[in-house]
Amino acid sequence: MKIKISGSGLYLPPKIERSEDIAHLIDRSVEWIHEKSGVFERRVSEIDVDKMGAIAGKEALNDGPPPDLIINASGVPRQTIPDTSTFYQKEMGFEGIPSYSIHCTCLSFITALHTASSLIQSNSYDRILIISADRGTVGRNYNEPESASLLGDGAAAVLLEPSSNDEDSELLYHTMSTWPSGSNLTEVRGGGTRKHPQDPNTTKEDNLFSMDGPAIYKIARKQVYRILLETLKETGLKRESIDWVIPHQASGKAVEAYISAGGFNKEQVLETVSKFGNCVAASVPMTLAMAIEDGRVKRGDLLMLIGTGAGLSAACSLIRY
Amino acid sequence: MKIKISGSGLYLPPKIERSEDIAHLIDRSVEWIHEKSGVFERRVSEIDVDKMGAIAGKEALNDGPPPDLIINASGVPRQTIPDTSTFYQKEMGFEGIPSYSIHCTCLSFITALHTASSLIQSNSYDRILIISADRGTVGRNYNEPESASLLGDGAAAVLLEPSSNDEDSELLYHTMSTWPSGSNLTEVRGGGTRKHPQDPNTTKEDNLFSMDGPAIYKIARKQVYRILLETLKETGLKRESIDWVIPHQASGKAVEAYISAGGFNKEQVLETVSKFGNCVAASVPMTLAMAIEDGRVKRGDLLMLIGTGAGLSAACSLIRY
Repeated sequence: MKIKISGSGLYLPPKIERSEDIAHLIDRSVEWIHEKSGVFERRVSEIDVDKMGAIAGKEALNDGPPPDLIINASGVPRQTIPDTSTFYQKEMGFEGIPSYSIHCTCLSFITALHTASSLIQSNSYDRILIISADRGTVGRNYNEPESASLLGDGAAAVLLEPSSNDEDSELLYHTMSTWPSGSNLTEVRGGGTRKHPQDPNTTKEDNLFSMDGPAIYKIARKQVYRILLETLKETGLKRESIDWVIPHQASGKAVEAYISAGGFNKEQVLETVSKFGNCVAASVPMTLAMAIEDGRVKRGDLLMLIGTGAGLSAACSLIRY
Repeated sequence: MKIKISGSGLYLPPKIERSEDIAHLIDRSVEWIHEKSGVFERRVSEIDVDKMGAIAGKEALNDGPPPDLIINASGVPRQTIPDTSTFYQKEMGFEGIPSYSIHCTCLSFITALHTASSLIQSNSYDRILIISADRGTVGRNYNEPESASLLGDGAAAVLLEPSSNDEDSELLYHTMSTWPSGSNLTEVRGGGTRKHPQDPNTTKEDNLFSMDGPAIYKIARKQVYRILLETLKETGLKRESIDWVIPHQASGKAVEAYISAGGFNKEQVLETVSKFGNCVAASVPMTLAMAIEDGRVKRGDLLMLIGTGAGLSAACSLIRY
């Protein structure tokens, strides 16, 4: 599909929380945290997701005209109703722009990018702003040391437009699969109709992030490898043709597996989890936006966006930037 | 866009709650409820949204092959993570089908239908199952008599496929707008990062449905009229060419306004709010599925799907069934 990421933006909360700051809260050593999660520090936001996303969104627009669609692609909403996209728009000072949310937890951004590409390809919209803003630290369960040490806060946005015939930019390939047999491996069981906040049987743990790290890693590694091979086979591309692998920053181990198991060179795989933690849906666009801003990702580069999310889902997109 | 609704399904919870049953809970007379909300009875589900949606989804598939994408298009999720689509898939006994959610409260279905049409038009997917399941009665605030008397439970699903060249079925037009200046008019403030369930400042009211009915009606009526005129102008169609207007069943008054203010005949406007209440995102597909099942909506009919949702958003789609 002939699309182009024509702008990108970031919000990295200024407050840094080092592993030293969280170790006593989860009753684990700093070394344990580094070994288990691969996270050395993460950001903790003091503003809510609407403001975080709006800052990233404005940067992606870069003083250009307003978008004609705003898609929120985050893991956890600001509130149940209305959806977060409305609040981004409010913070950005717009009125009347259609907006809605696409949600599949950590894969929300990759899925929204593909969906937005379809909307552009079908001439439905022309200038789509996709924003991911997650504040996972609010939902940390300190009785679950592994997931509590993983989560960080951040936001990123991209502006998507049609690419012209003399531009190479495009979405080459997209694939996604969801296996509900893994639906209980990553959960926030509360916040909806199942364990309603007003239900006296809803526990504190139901309202916090819960994750079976080892079980996910086992399934995720296999499924990610499968979709990686499928993507290479279907596109006829070799690993060395991919300029940058931009994985969901699930954990240090998960990112490293793209090298040890996935067969990519260390130089190809972009890593931000050690400094920013797992920022749920914002991890992929944050990693992308940072690499665009510091000049590593250049126009014409071939990008592989890949990862797993609660569901359990796996997805992979190939994009010519 | 050349798409066709090739299947539809419904789940109407068997338990009926009449206005007589709820009047004492909200301290209002039966007459007051009928006058304010237009709801004479509603269904109250004893199963959760995943099971409700799966029943409707299976009916829409009608023993055919599995879909290649499942989209959840509901107002309120089963839980925060993972998204509801995973749980539909689990209940339907599938594994490996990509699935995610599209959310813009009461307009989730209309928006998902348009988005899915784009995905088909761009050859991304071929057989998309869209499911809306809402259980608004769980979030009723009995201290808000108007909204508490409005909400009902239900689920519906449609199967979307490409239409062939010798078929007339298509999506002719779609428009949507969101005005964040109205974002506080319909809310469930809890359930996310703003008023987290574990935040001691989160109140019971924050976790329940809250609505400023008269203020919404005033804005909604104006904005719906605007998009109605826009749709007729852009497509060159007249009101009499529309076979069926299928509005979001916001309230008795809101549905009636398509006749009194919108200029349609009573016979054109499909009404289900009096017997089923406002079923949030499920209202539009439930009303559509009922009219397909009882034979009113026939192949080739021109349908207008229209309504407002929290955001505040308004949307309108024209579909040749």
